[in-house]
Amino acid sequence: MLNYVPDLDSVFHALADPGRRLMLERLGQGPASVSELGTSLPMSLAAVVQHVQVLEASGLVRTQKLGRTRMCSLNPAPLRSAERWISERGAFVERSLDRLGQYLAETAQTTDTPTNAGQSGLHPSEEETS
Amino acid sequence: MLNYVPDLDSVFHALADPGRRLMLERLGQGPASVSELGTSLPMSLAAVVQHVQVLEASGLVRTQKLGRTRMCSLNPAPLRSAERWISERGAFVERSLDRLGQYLAETAQTTDTPTNAGQSGLHPSEEETS
Repeated sequence: MLNYVPDLDSVFHALADPGRRLMLERLGQGPASVSELGTSLPMSLAAVVQHVQVLEASGLVRTQKLGRTRMCSLNPAPLRSAERWISERGAFVERSLDRLGQYLAETAQTTDTPTNAGQSGLHPSEEETS
Repeated sequence: MLNYVPDLDSVFHALADPGRRLMLERLGQGPASVSELGTSLPMSLAAVVQHVQVLEASGLVRTQKLGRTRMCSLNPAPLRSAERWISERGAFVERSLDRLGQYLAETAQTTDTPTNAGQSGLHPSEEETS
């Protein structure tokens, strides 16, 4: 079967929803209760709870019951894993572009640098006809 | 309604599948045809085509028909957007930890450094009752 890191599936799935991203943006500023997370979002408390459950399952959010309140906080580790995966892909592309740039530079240099053969043999027909 | 960047929804959704991430890893090394993308994956060509369509819809992959072959290449721009969103959240958390560290350092300093008020007025009731 596919050789994959299961965590990244749930992390990217959790990040694919705009409401959940807004919750993470809020939690980036500090812990918040589930109801506080929902205050700025146009959704029911039940929907907020469901989103928090998805975030918790992905590991992006940790929750803790304090009395009758469930407090949520951001866990940066899965964010770092996702960021690392993405940046590694970007690095691949940049290395490919570097290799292409290097190849083009080398090719240009070979074409530009006049050789003995080039100096003596450059457009001989033109020299003869001018 | 929610104020969100629609592209990130489809980018993170595309990244949430291990097969699609493997395709992106392959494309990070250079362009490949749709059938080449499928060679190392345990799925039908029809499934590969569907995954490529999801990747193309998210903007992560560009395709071009060359004769009877559809060539795919990685587009780094959406990867950069996703990376930026994640790193901004991480930066928020780091700043919060910095603030917490600063607060704790300041608190420790205030507690350690004796002041006139502290020396004369600390726990006056205890001093009176002792």
